[in-house]
Amino acid sequence: MLLGGIEAGGTKFVCAVGDEKGNIIEKVSFPTRNPEETLNDVKEFFNHHPIEALGVGSFGPIDLNKDSTSYGMILNTPKIKWKNYNLLGSLKKDFDIPIFIDTDVNAACSAEYKYGAGRDVGSCLYITVGTGIGAGLVQDGRIFQGKNHSEMGHIFVRQHPDDPFEGGCPYHRNCLEGLASGPAIEARYGTKGALLVDNENVWEMEAYYLAQAIMNYTVTLYPERIIVGGGVLKQEGLYPLIRRHLVEMMNGYIDVGEVDKFIVAPELGDAQGVRGAMSLVVL
Amino acid sequence: MLLGGIEAGGTKFVCAVGDEKGNIIEKVSFPTRNPEETLNDVKEFFNHHPIEALGVGSFGPIDLNKDSTSYGMILNTPKIKWKNYNLLGSLKKDFDIPIFIDTDVNAACSAEYKYGAGRDVGSCLYITVGTGIGAGLVQDGRIFQGKNHSEMGHIFVRQHPDDPFEGGCPYHRNCLEGLASGPAIEARYGTKGALLVDNENVWEMEAYYLAQAIMNYTVTLYPERIIVGGGVLKQEGLYPLIRRHLVEMMNGYIDVGEVDKFIVAPELGDAQGVRGAMSLVVL
Repeated sequence: MLLGGIEAGGTKFVCAVGDEKGNIIEKVSFPTRNPEETLNDVKEFFNHHPIEALGVGSFGPIDLNKDSTSYGMILNTPKIKWKNYNLLGSLKKDFDIPIFIDTDVNAACSAEYKYGAGRDVGSCLYITVGTGIGAGLVQDGRIFQGKNHSEMGHIFVRQHPDDPFEGGCPYHRNCLEGLASGPAIEARYGTKGALLVDNENVWEMEAYYLAQAIMNYTVTLYPERIIVGGGVLKQEGLYPLIRRHLVEMMNGYIDVGEVDKFIVAPELGDAQGVRGAMSLVVL
Repeated sequence: MLLGGIEAGGTKFVCAVGDEKGNIIEKVSFPTRNPEETLNDVKEFFNHHPIEALGVGSFGPIDLNKDSTSYGMILNTPKIKWKNYNLLGSLKKDFDIPIFIDTDVNAACSAEYKYGAGRDVGSCLYITVGTGIGAGLVQDGRIFQGKNHSEMGHIFVRQHPDDPFEGGCPYHRNCLEGLASGPAIEARYGTKGALLVDNENVWEMEAYYLAQAIMNYTVTLYPERIIVGGGVLKQEGLYPLIRRHLVEMMNGYIDVGEVDKFIVAPELGDAQGVRGAMSLVVL
């Protein structure tokens, strides 16, 4: 069966066709412009491939409540032209095949669960730490979803005692995303994280925040594995720091097994997003 | 169909027989002693009733991982005689009928979802604030469970700026349970919460902690309703305070609808536990 996948990002769209095992046969990428132009490019690409089903991992927030009249629509986004755009509806007009839609982070989690760092466990949480912070949970082949998709990046964490930064979240100021996203690091130090590689305090503080979040996700969701990715985690030294903080914070309360296997890096690299989108069809 | 239910508590056991609608036909209660004596009383009671299935809501921690060799066993509890006791195994020897086991808080959540304050929604989180703090989630007729049951009472919260109490959790000191359980209130003020009814600061601080937890649970799990119960919530003035703090903290980020309908009190009273146990059979 030939599957299609769309990684619908705020900056670029990636479209691919592939098989049920997540192998990519052909892939294209183009910049995200207004919805009509962008979706035309999507249609153009898939018209050359007899796909039988389509998966979409989209930027958000997006309405994923199947009982809602706006199911499949982009919600309140700063990208004005995309606000309230009926992404699923538009795709359904163009493609008369089953279409599966979820958030980009849930699609990434699905990809790691099926093909990557979570392929040997029954449940995994995927956290992405970049421009924003998001997380998704896949368990027993299902993406967890409440009334709508989670917004786990906005949990509250304790401010590090040495952190004077007031936080950058426009809604919550010093929630996790407000303190630990890439832009938060840059705002705190006045320079990008990539230029702070040798400043141990930067990564110690970052690990403190991420470990708190992982502590809270673990006692709440108890996944078998937690995969932490995104641009900020290119700083590989973060992994051992996060693990050390988590072990201290958890203090043996919940058995997470070997912490090196509990908190891991993603394995799928650049194609994670579009493979994730395709994987929504076969999860 | 005649159903049996066991509310297996650390202080007392409640056993009941009833119907699929949660109506109780007969109910007994006896103190929790050692496992053998206690289970003998259980057996004695149900031997007089031709029950066709049995639900058990148990104190914990308990192994609920069906793939585990210790599935259905009480785990690491301060009640020495119950530690590593095979509760499910013992019941299976006595009763050759389907037996459904879960934690007491998940059973309570199930009861409220089917018969109480959550009966008109598709998902609800039940939080109990008493000697400890625990929470359970039921969604679309299923109790949420990761690798094992959640321990949501142990999430980290920010210390209130006016709170000098170091926290009472033996594992995490100032996690939510360490700061906001009944014993935490008593330790902070040197007197029981019930005697502090008129001290507004007590409840303002309590609401601050519980609202933080609800904020974190909401962005993570996004339930349609949150039911807050347990001994500490007998202080009914807490509800409007929790709601006010949550609205401030959330700052419109996630739409929880009318907050008066989002955060509510339980409806089932004293029989909640054993009705919850019975409800596990028919959830």
